[in-house]
Amino acid sequence: MTDDNVVRSLREFVAERDWAQFHSPENLAKSIAIEGGELLECFQWGSDADAERVRDELADVLTYCLLLADRLGVDPDEIVLDKLERTRGKYPVEKARGRSTKYDAL
Amino acid sequence: MTDDNVVRSLREFVAERDWAQFHSPENLAKSIAIEGGELLECFQWGSDADAERVRDELADVLTYCLLLADRLGVDPDEIVLDKLERTRGKYPVEKARGRSTKYDAL
Amino acid sequence: MTDDNVVRSLREFVAERDWAQFHSPENLAKSIAIEGGELLECFQWGSDADAERVRDELADVLTYCLLLADRLGVDPDEIVLDKLERTRGKYPVEKARGRSTKYDAL
Amino acid sequence: MTDDNVVRSLREFVAERDWAQFHSPENLAKSIAIEGGELLECFQWGSDADAERVRDELADVLTYCLLLADRLGVDPDEIVLDKLERTRGKYPVEKARGRSTKYDAL
Repeated sequence: MTDDNVVRSLREFVAERDWAQFHSPENLAKSIAIEGGELLECFQWGSDADAERVRDELADVLTYCLLLADRLGVDPDEIVLDKLERTRGKYPVEKARGRSTKYDAL
Repeated sequence: MTDDNVVRSLREFVAERDWAQFHSPENLAKSIAIEGGELLECFQWGSDADAERVRDELADVLTYCLLLADRLGVDPDEIVLDKLERTRGKYPVEKARGRSTKYDAL
Repeated sequence: MTDDNVVRSLREFVAERDWAQFHSPENLAKSIAIEGGELLECFQWGSDADAERVRDELADVLTYCLLLADRLGVDPDEIVLDKLERTRGKYPVEKARGRSTKYDAL
Repeated sequence: MTDDNVVRSLREFVAERDWAQFHSPENLAKSIAIEGGELLECFQWGSDADAERVRDELADVLTYCLLLADRLGVDPDEIVLDKLERTRGKYPVEKARGRSTKYDAL
């Protein structure tokens, strides 16, 4: 994804504003948690949420995720697929199908 | 991104395990916040963190973000670029360059 | 703490507004995470934060914690002291002194 | 609450382990967000949660809140009551009764 239009646009946006100085991995991790809270706020009192607002807050979480992946020099798609392989092992279909139980209690 | 290998793999993984029933937008938003907390935990007492663990937790946040985007029927790349355009307006380069100040205090 | 002035004031505040209907344990847990994100936002780009704003956001997290404790019928002081006893065992002084290492790696 | 048994016990626990060095306001704010995520995890896939686990995680959030209040030199009860007064003004009973609407949309 390092040649992807999205990552290029983000890098350009950050460079224009000389913001890389604030984008330590720690600050980006804090930002992901902060935006995750704002996304959750769409559902604070119930399961119905304004679609546009959810899309907006999700975009913020994703943005910081992509910035962190870039800062760490990893490909977002690659780490997701890599983690998926390991999760496959923790949740074999025959045990996990139809159940939300955590792997250590399967 | 709806034809992307990553989203296809995630959909297949979820379908095999009959897990879509648990993936309401609200539950996915909660999951993003939860994983965001685990990512943040890598930096709980300082800015040095184990690179592998950070990559792992970031993958979890991204995974739930992609699942939520898919559930909402939106393209992750599209909503990030769309939000970036609006953020451009809130942080004009001449005012925001080199500053971490929030837009309403610029 | 169930006779404490703070809890009484909170109960009265909620009752006047007929808000108990929204205060399921789940909604209160979501609220704590949301306010935790707002508190963290005070430190998003660095360790210096506006003291008044931190106090304000901390008050919000505490408020929802007290509401949840009350909803669960537990005494906040009691559960904190109870947990502290168990934490004593996980972090014996001779092993844990001066170290931020998590108990499972001591 | 600065003379309360709970705060005294926490201070003693921290001093014995020489942990105050890790308890900067920022690290404590991160800890509150982290524990808030663990509390939320009790409700990740639904509204039913194990009572003991919720109590345990709530105790962790409260513990860090009390440590932060102590570090800032504020009384938890006082800042909660103080914030409640301001919230009264934002949510007058006649407008807010029975509604979960945020104050800026009342």
